[in-house]
Amino acid sequence: MRPGEGLDALMSPRSIAIIGASQEATKIGGRPVDLLCRHGYAGRIYPVNPKAAMVQGLQAYASVADLPEAPDLAIIAVDAERACEAVEQCAARGVRSVVVFSSGFAELGEQGRAMQERLRVAARGSGMRLLGPNCLGAVSVAEKSIATFSIVLEHGMPAAGSLGIVSQSGNLGSYTMRLASERGVGVSRFITTGNECDIDIADGIAWMARDPATKVILCCLEACRDAGRLISSLEEARDAGKPVIAMKIGTSAAGQAAAASHTGAMAGSDAVFDALFARCGAVRVRSIDELIDLGHAASILLPDRLPKGPGIAILTASGGFGVLLADAAQSAGLTLPELGEDTQRQILELVPFASARNPVDATAQMSSRPDLLEKIMTAVVADERTDTVILPLPFSLHLPRLRSIYMNTLRNMRAQFPRRPIVLCVDGPDDALAELHALGFPTIESFDGCCATVAALVRLQAAAQRPQDKPAPVVRAAPPAADAFRHELGAKRALAEAGVPVLTERLVRDADAAARAATEIGYPVVLKIASPDLPHKTEAGGVVVGLGSEADVRRAYAQMCDRVATRAPDAAIDGVIVAPMAKGVAELILGSRIDPVFGPVVMVGLGGIFAEILQDSAVQMAPVSEAQAMAMLKSLKAFAVLDGARGRPRADLDAAAKAVAALSRFAAAHADTIAEIDVNPLLLRARGEGAVALDALLIPHGERPVGGH
Amino acid sequence: MRPGEGLDALMSPRSIAIIGASQEATKIGGRPVDLLCRHGYAGRIYPVNPKAAMVQGLQAYASVADLPEAPDLAIIAVDAERACEAVEQCAARGVRSVVVFSSGFAELGEQGRAMQERLRVAARGSGMRLLGPNCLGAVSVAEKSIATFSIVLEHGMPAAGSLGIVSQSGNLGSYTMRLASERGVGVSRFITTGNECDIDIADGIAWMARDPATKVILCCLEACRDAGRLISSLEEARDAGKPVIAMKIGTSAAGQAAAASHTGAMAGSDAVFDALFARCGAVRVRSIDELIDLGHAASILLPDRLPKGPGIAILTASGGFGVLLADAAQSAGLTLPELGEDTQRQILELVPFASARNPVDATAQMSSRPDLLEKIMTAVVADERTDTVILPLPFSLHLPRLRSIYMNTLRNMRAQFPRRPIVLCVDGPDDALAELHALGFPTIESFDGCCATVAALVRLQAAAQRPQDKPAPVVRAAPPAADAFRHELGAKRALAEAGVPVLTERLVRDADAAARAATEIGYPVVLKIASPDLPHKTEAGGVVVGLGSEADVRRAYAQMCDRVATRAPDAAIDGVIVAPMAKGVAELILGSRIDPVFGPVVMVGLGGIFAEILQDSAVQMAPVSEAQAMAMLKSLKAFAVLDGARGRPRADLDAAAKAVAALSRFAAAHADTIAEIDVNPLLLRARGEGAVALDALLIPHGERPVGGH
Repeated sequence: MRPGEGLDALMSPRSIAIIGASQEATKIGGRPVDLLCRHGYAGRIYPVNPKAAMVQGLQAYASVADLPEAPDLAIIAVDAERACEAVEQCAARGVRSVVVFSSGFAELGEQGRAMQERLRVAARGSGMRLLGPNCLGAVSVAEKSIATFSIVLEHGMPAAGSLGIVSQSGNLGSYTMRLASERGVGVSRFITTGNECDIDIADGIAWMARDPATKVILCCLEACRDAGRLISSLEEARDAGKPVIAMKIGTSAAGQAAAASHTGAMAGSDAVFDALFARCGAVRVRSIDELIDLGHAASILLPDRLPKGPGIAILTASGGFGVLLADAAQSAGLTLPELGEDTQRQILELVPFASARNPVDATAQMSSRPDLLEKIMTAVVADERTDTVILPLPFSLHLPRLRSIYMNTLRNMRAQFPRRPIVLCVDGPDDALAELHALGFPTIESFDGCCATVAALVRLQAAAQRPQDKPAPVVRAAPPAADAFRHELGAKRALAEAGVPVLTERLVRDADAAARAATEIGYPVVLKIASPDLPHKTEAGGVVVGLGSEADVRRAYAQMCDRVATRAPDAAIDGVIVAPMAKGVAELILGSRIDPVFGPVVMVGLGGIFAEILQDSAVQMAPVSEAQAMAMLKSLKAFAVLDGARGRPRADLDAAAKAVAALSRFAAAHADTIAEIDVNPLLLRARGEGAVALDALLIPHGERPVGGH
Repeated sequence: MRPGEGLDALMSPRSIAIIGASQEATKIGGRPVDLLCRHGYAGRIYPVNPKAAMVQGLQAYASVADLPEAPDLAIIAVDAERACEAVEQCAARGVRSVVVFSSGFAELGEQGRAMQERLRVAARGSGMRLLGPNCLGAVSVAEKSIATFSIVLEHGMPAAGSLGIVSQSGNLGSYTMRLASERGVGVSRFITTGNECDIDIADGIAWMARDPATKVILCCLEACRDAGRLISSLEEARDAGKPVIAMKIGTSAAGQAAAASHTGAMAGSDAVFDALFARCGAVRVRSIDELIDLGHAASILLPDRLPKGPGIAILTASGGFGVLLADAAQSAGLTLPELGEDTQRQILELVPFASARNPVDATAQMSSRPDLLEKIMTAVVADERTDTVILPLPFSLHLPRLRSIYMNTLRNMRAQFPRRPIVLCVDGPDDALAELHALGFPTIESFDGCCATVAALVRLQAAAQRPQDKPAPVVRAAPPAADAFRHELGAKRALAEAGVPVLTERLVRDADAAARAATEIGYPVVLKIASPDLPHKTEAGGVVVGLGSEADVRRAYAQMCDRVATRAPDAAIDGVIVAPMAKGVAELILGSRIDPVFGPVVMVGLGGIFAEILQDSAVQMAPVSEAQAMAMLKSLKAFAVLDGARGRPRADLDAAAKAVAALSRFAAAHADTIAEIDVNPLLLRARGEGAVALDALLIPHGERPVGGH
């Protein structure tokens, strides 16, 4: 089923049954009844409880079968065993959607997985959509459709707004909803998917992409069970102009281990998530604070006040705050363009002792004289050399005198500059903040948070604008020739067919043939042993370089055969490879492997020390286009090394990107047979002179390599 | 004067005069009068105002001369011109200390600097201490001595406590005081030093180090005017067992530019601040949030509940929170040791479906059954495989039912484990948080902030424990021989005398001498031109390597002389250096320069790509001991490259550290004559085989090099 289909009954139900409805409002089966009644849900509510005639003042029903109609939504708040029966009864009764709160399913191992499968079969068999099990349910704020037992609602409902929250973890989703409320950000929808036996995170994203009430989607996820669905839902949101702000947790080794034991699902490589979000236009954040800050700011600035670039102006009455913000801005990747001469002159005419370049430090004069404040702020906001104006007013709004000065000035700014992005670094009374939000000014208390958010807004705007560069569709190919898995020459021949550049090399089986091959290829040459049993050729004595004559080749051939026979008497020898010597200006390592979630992925990094010590590499789902491959290269920390830094020769980056793209197509086409590909090194020549794979290894499924090579 | 001396009159005055006292409580000259009266300052208050008999209900005096006694402290709240007179009058009257609020001094250029000098002369001449000018003054909270016009006190005084705040920026200091108040952290003292015409940040730190009311010192600084005083005050605080938590702003290029224009002072190299704080046992933080969180946590955990190491246990009722915290912990540098088998068994007996390794996810069971919660928490806290227990309870304390369960359990934990570090990741009602703080539990709302704080506490504990390794005292030396500035051989001879290892090399002036020298040295040799005018020897054709015979040397000598004469006809030629070829396993770049604040500093980095592209280098004030030099090497990102990573040979690190220390002593000894030293490369041989400086350049003061070499 296409992501997001069939969720209307869940999110906008006209009637809700609660199976396991309890008289006590604090119990799991009592809380939804209480919340629906208390907040005035307008649809019909049917408590189901075989032991009670009334529940919390409503008529109760003994079973699903006894209900006067098949409800749009049934909430299942009974233990796992009884939940299976209840779901089957709902399916039989024609219920359109169910939320299963109950835990005790796949997260507990084999028996639980079997019970969860029973839920899935019941739901899929009837077309009924199922949220959960082991989840905190769903809420539509404006409709007061409250199918959750989240304790954060004990505090009251969030205000209705345009922020949609979709989370695998119920607690993270709830916490996000609560923080949004505290920050005065209105929420449209809340969906927690738990074990995802039917409805998954992709359903939630795609449905919200089509939901008129939702403008921004916050997404918390730990794992991905179906990469294709996730991608398609993210693309749908992007195409609908709705930013997805994703917090993917389990980034650390410790976090991944915890997530695996918590969700029972493979997470997939965290680096691939990064690549996937970037490709689909989602903006990834690293903490819940960033998630909330960015959700808040985006929902206020959309649709037409997003910053167009990274240049900010800082306007402050305190030099110290200006310095602190400038530090925070630089570390977030923002820039501080110098303001125009006109702007600076205007500022200095108003306050001769101001710093006017940027940050603008208009000194305490600014906050003591409203007329100056307005003129200086007008000058700074009007200067379009910067994309966003940041105004730090840490505690000013708490002081009535300063509050009225700043609020008046900001109202005037909005009237004069209706579309200009202005972000306030401020805390203050709730009513002041609410007015600022209504005027279109995001407010963020922390200096770091403010700059991180503006930087993320710039990424969000860029993601929405980025032209879509789709990779070619995957064409499944027949398995490569058997020798592709036996030795490097076979591997390189297979890769060469796919477009990865290689040298002219020969496989020979005696010294005469080696000498003839060398003469054809041209001296000097290299001899390398060809054997499926010797991945470490050098250690086995199976590599000799720099052979300058026929005599050298003959002698080296004989000696190599002797050495290998002594050191590895049991190794199968396919022959000896004769190859030309090659020189270049840089080396890359390329490769692919099969990610348990994302399938074939392609990696590239600089060779030598960079890959070994600095773990500087880029990864993407295969296949990638040449443009995407180039983006991977540019994302390397040591990219400058390839691009002529400090007088180095510029490497042939176009050839490198072509090779990465070719390898990625090959990996995707052979994902059923090839588990891993290593090209080490891909030698890059100077710009315009190409690249060439010097060594390669293909590993079929079901085999682990002996080691590096 | 020794840092911190003579500040008692400022911080614990028995009488305070306010010069420029105003009837209006919101004016700068009215606010201190109002605050002192309102909050019940117990000493004598003398408003000075020539135009009023009474000010805010107190008898006023026409001038300083008219005061009935010489007050301990006078606050100067008049404009800059009148402030100079007032300070002179105070000095004449025998006032013991003054605070000058007035701006319009050194921050405004030449004329202001002259006026500031007048203040300094008046103060120094009489022994009166002077805070400011251009500052927000000082506060002693318990004594209600309020010598400030900071608007944050319009909101009320902070609670008295043990946190001392010393800040150059008045606004940053005020904001820090306000955030501390909001977080329920009591403050002992508040000092803002502004332009530091007399009292500087070092005075504030040193005085607080001796102040019985202060346990933890928060320090905000932008610049350092006297490195020696700063070091001595930090060491005094460390030796007194009082952690200094330093937020040095102006870390970015943009921030440094802003700080320079704001303070009128040179900041000094940010990297040297890092080194200096680390050496003096201060813990540096990067944001105001970290400053407050760490100040809060340290003041609660000191003296005997600081974590002893980086291992944390996470105990949660939510898998999602566990994953998020595990990510945050790893990125903060904390570790999650697996809990003991016993502990895990106990947990699983209580909650069979828990995750028990660490993070411990005891599921929602934990918060619904107080008996389970207590038993599980006891098991986790008792397990001493971890150093700190982190408990995420994001919104639980806001819900009365959960609040009582958690508070009871935590009271019992504290009774059972009085010294165990337990940090709560929680928000809640103020009274609940206050009780937790009194029980010795720091509370931090954000997940990232919680982990960053625990990691900083570990550094703080380590800094207090670290054995002190003092560098040898600087011995000023006679200037090096003139040829040290003319060519690399002269430079290396000077460095060799100081203990930097070099090769045996000869300076020759004809081909015969070159051939003789080569024969003595042993082939192959290198010839290098010796000229003060050719820093780029290679580009000038002035380097030939790999000369294997006398004939080769003669030919190369003649050709080199011709080439250089053609390419650089005006260059003064001192001769040609004959040197042996040398091989090693790694290359370092060493150097020194004169920092405008810190004086001679020594730097070391890996040669080649690492230094050029990754800017991977370490810096310290010179001189450093060999142990400190080794610590510099170990701090390099690419240290593993030197230390045998991935089968590479291990370089002779002891020899490298010796060379760094020797160069640093040389740089310190010659700081008056030598502006810059570059050794590039220092070749490192394999372990036990030494190191050798292959090329070197010394630049005297007043000369800029032509370029690299």
